[in-house]
Amino acid sequence: MSEVSTTRRSRAGGRAGNARRTPGFHLDQMPWRVPFNPDRPVEPIDDEGVQAIHKGAMHILSEIGIEFLNDEALDIFRAAGCRVDGITVRMDEDFVMEMVRRAPASFTITPRNPARQVTIGDGHMVFVNVSSPPSSWDIKRGKRSGDFETFQDFIKLTQFFNCIHIAGGYPVEPLDIHPSVRHLDCVSQKLILTDKVCHAYSLGRERVEDVMEMVRIAGGLTHAEFDASPRMYTNINSVSPLKHDFPMIDGALRMARRHQPVIVTPFTLAGAMAPVTMAGAVTLSIAEGLAAIALLQYVAPGCPVGIGTFTSNVDMRSGAPAFGTPEYMRATQITGQLARFYGLPLRSSGVCTANVPDGQAMWETSNSLWAAVQSGSNMVYHAAGWLEGGLIASPEKFVMDCEVLQMIQRYYEPSITATTPEDIALDAVKQVGAGGHFFGCDHTQARYANAFYNPIVSDWRNFEAWQADGAVETPERAHKIYRDIIDNFEAPPMDVAIRAELDAFVTKRKAEGGAPTDF
Amino acid sequence: MSEVSTTRRSRAGGRAGNARRTPGFHLDQMPWRVPFNPDRPVEPIDDEGVQAIHKGAMHILSEIGIEFLNDEALDIFRAAGCRVDGITVRMDEDFVMEMVRRAPASFTITPRNPARQVTIGDGHMVFVNVSSPPSSWDIKRGKRSGDFETFQDFIKLTQFFNCIHIAGGYPVEPLDIHPSVRHLDCVSQKLILTDKVCHAYSLGRERVEDVMEMVRIAGGLTHAEFDASPRMYTNINSVSPLKHDFPMIDGALRMARRHQPVIVTPFTLAGAMAPVTMAGAVTLSIAEGLAAIALLQYVAPGCPVGIGTFTSNVDMRSGAPAFGTPEYMRATQITGQLARFYGLPLRSSGVCTANVPDGQAMWETSNSLWAAVQSGSNMVYHAAGWLEGGLIASPEKFVMDCEVLQMIQRYYEPSITATTPEDIALDAVKQVGAGGHFFGCDHTQARYANAFYNPIVSDWRNFEAWQADGAVETPERAHKIYRDIIDNFEAPPMDVAIRAELDAFVTKRKAEGGAPTDF
Repeated sequence: MSEVSTTRRSRAGGRAGNARRTPGFHLDQMPWRVPFNPDRPVEPIDDEGVQAIHKGAMHILSEIGIEFLNDEALDIFRAAGCRVDGITVRMDEDFVMEMVRRAPASFTITPRNPARQVTIGDGHMVFVNVSSPPSSWDIKRGKRSGDFETFQDFIKLTQFFNCIHIAGGYPVEPLDIHPSVRHLDCVSQKLILTDKVCHAYSLGRERVEDVMEMVRIAGGLTHAEFDASPRMYTNINSVSPLKHDFPMIDGALRMARRHQPVIVTPFTLAGAMAPVTMAGAVTLSIAEGLAAIALLQYVAPGCPVGIGTFTSNVDMRSGAPAFGTPEYMRATQITGQLARFYGLPLRSSGVCTANVPDGQAMWETSNSLWAAVQSGSNMVYHAAGWLEGGLIASPEKFVMDCEVLQMIQRYYEPSITATTPEDIALDAVKQVGAGGHFFGCDHTQARYANAFYNPIVSDWRNFEAWQADGAVETPERAHKIYRDIIDNFEAPPMDVAIRAELDAFVTKRKAEGGAPTDF
Repeated sequence: MSEVSTTRRSRAGGRAGNARRTPGFHLDQMPWRVPFNPDRPVEPIDDEGVQAIHKGAMHILSEIGIEFLNDEALDIFRAAGCRVDGITVRMDEDFVMEMVRRAPASFTITPRNPARQVTIGDGHMVFVNVSSPPSSWDIKRGKRSGDFETFQDFIKLTQFFNCIHIAGGYPVEPLDIHPSVRHLDCVSQKLILTDKVCHAYSLGRERVEDVMEMVRIAGGLTHAEFDASPRMYTNINSVSPLKHDFPMIDGALRMARRHQPVIVTPFTLAGAMAPVTMAGAVTLSIAEGLAAIALLQYVAPGCPVGIGTFTSNVDMRSGAPAFGTPEYMRATQITGQLARFYGLPLRSSGVCTANVPDGQAMWETSNSLWAAVQSGSNMVYHAAGWLEGGLIASPEKFVMDCEVLQMIQRYYEPSITATTPEDIALDAVKQVGAGGHFFGCDHTQARYANAFYNPIVSDWRNFEAWQADGAVETPERAHKIYRDIIDNFEAPPMDVAIRAELDAFVTKRKAEGGAPTDF
């Protein structure tokens, strides 16, 4: 299979940008593009249902209240005329909706390579690598704690695959690097090994400020240029139910004030941190999300924000989260309806509960990715590489997921669904006639090179040919591709002066002790 | 895993009907139901595109013509005023549309157990087992030619799983039984081992007549009762491009005249038997399908029919069919738009190219099943058990697919998307409060037993628990369930007099030599 993958001639999708620089290895992946989803979203609830969830969220915000463990946020809400009682903030619908209306329906983020600019919103859908697992798993080494070398491998996969648009959080936590300086090593390496949009964890002042500075340096930007438009982003989670903690809100405020996007993603597991009913879990998620978005829009009117969904259900046997379930799919679609009601870009995820990249992993992941499509999601986190409910990052799963992501990109291409006379092809039907074969006809010969999706890891040979070639199953094929990518990886070019400035900043900040770890 | 599956208490979905009769083994599957798809279908093309395909199909029918290798059909078309030139039939749009309008938008089929009645159309979606592979594959025995014992095993799986509504074609061809009597052994066993709707292959007069007679006997019906309403069905394929052969049309005519449903499913592989463009392949498929439907409606006005899609693309490397591709998905959705335009029930399939039930098999199958959902398909062939482009039936894949089918059924349930005040659950949110946990609250306790989908073969435990229990991957878990089902299978009850009559019929027809094998 790998020989086929690496030697087949270029067809639909063309050559990868990276592959030019990797002699001896070529994977015929699809070119970089920012996919556009042309489909009408699936809408499981009607307008009355949308209103019921909206009014429920407004009731939570105005009557039950949200706790903010952040004094600055409490002061801001007080100044805005909200009712602040201890750490509990209550805000009225008029205020919330006025703030939400300030948010743009879409925004662009421009990384150090402007050709990798992405649009979040406006029907576009971008894919983010797996973020934040503490462990990795691969077929050779099994499950291991995350380390910096493995972190770098995943960043290389993130850069290599054109269907991955954003280098999100750490694809695996490098536990061999001290937390005080982890962000310096990780983000500087991310900025060196990729030229795609990158992300800052909102884990305290120093980390957020350091990452913004590193992104500014890597982009060769002045401070004014950095502040003028989105160059990176953060994602914050609430502490469901009904709570936002200090560092996440602190980081979000710092980012918003410099016009850097903030995605607010409550993690509302129905039956655990949220009501057992999916509408209840979505309502709580919306309330928590809008509370933070209202804060940010009050402080920085018009700042780019998105609303995330991470609503799923627990396994009632164990209380552990389950992903890619029917309930997950419907919650994602319903959240999409609410996101459109509020005019906010939507983030969802590619997720599964499975521990290894087998059949279960792929039906769960497929369920979640098709729910992302059906919900009109604009940003899909964890789109490649996620296992075990987010506790494992797997390189084989990363490659397998990229096959599914490429198929979604291909699915969106207007050429597949075109109905011009040339597509209806009556002349070819007449020419070939009853009992004939279309392969040789001019209509086919003129189009076959780009007519169909061209897989990267799927094996489409028959059983006997596949068996004669070693009966290699999907994870083993994916492993070979992963190793080929790592072994042949070349980082995108970076100006030597910029690289020196970036290294100097990291050295200086390490000498200063990095970030405190006692928050 | 199997212990968990077999001993867990009954929750969402309740107990299977069969499980009552199988002491020592219990799989907590969902109950029998005929799913209803509440979603608006995905529509990749606009009204103009639908018209372009319709007009293209009408042009094929009126100008290029369809070959019918069946003298009776040619006589009928001549009598209907169509232009018959040798074996080529040309028919005008007015005639075709008048005939198509005679077809009902939906119909029911009632098998020997009336509780297993299914509705084809009207937003319902029923699942059919894998049909017609010449070989089977399982993890213990690998790939083998089909035999009668394996055939019976698959029929037992078909009966056991409540999410399989119809016992379609032979789930594997029993090559150890002579073709002249194969239909007698297979269909009599199918009628004994299942009480679900069953199918006749249209492979010559004797086979079709014998199967109708066996279904009549098994149902305890008079000839008049059998003829009064649908009791079984057939599926016919055209010989694309542009041709219908003798036995398929012969069988369809025999069935239609007795009000038994006929599904017409052209097999239009883009780039091989059809144009390389998906719109072209769909147009040809529609033309071939409507040609046969027009014939049947002329002969038996109002007879129940459905239109099938089996449009996919070839692998341009090998010319072999590829399934579950983006092109397959779009073709299925577009055919759904045309089926609604003509007011006909739609059949599609659950299909993949993969050779073994690994990750590739499940993303391909998931793609095809979600395309079935999105297209508004009413009948899904090969929904469980298909591998290698239809050359292999696999019991492990059957069990794994049933998990996906159950999730689709669950996805359709209105309870997941309900937005009543009880679902929005503001009282529970207030009661639990910030930082609380919902598991213990009354709202959760009153609902948790049926709140979420309950898996049959998925393992939702964390990595360490799963590893400590043997690190059993999905196909191995599915194998254990498959063996448990076979080992504990009990056939549904059948009246002894009916059983005797059925046996006597089979004996008589075998003595007469069965069906000729030289057609």
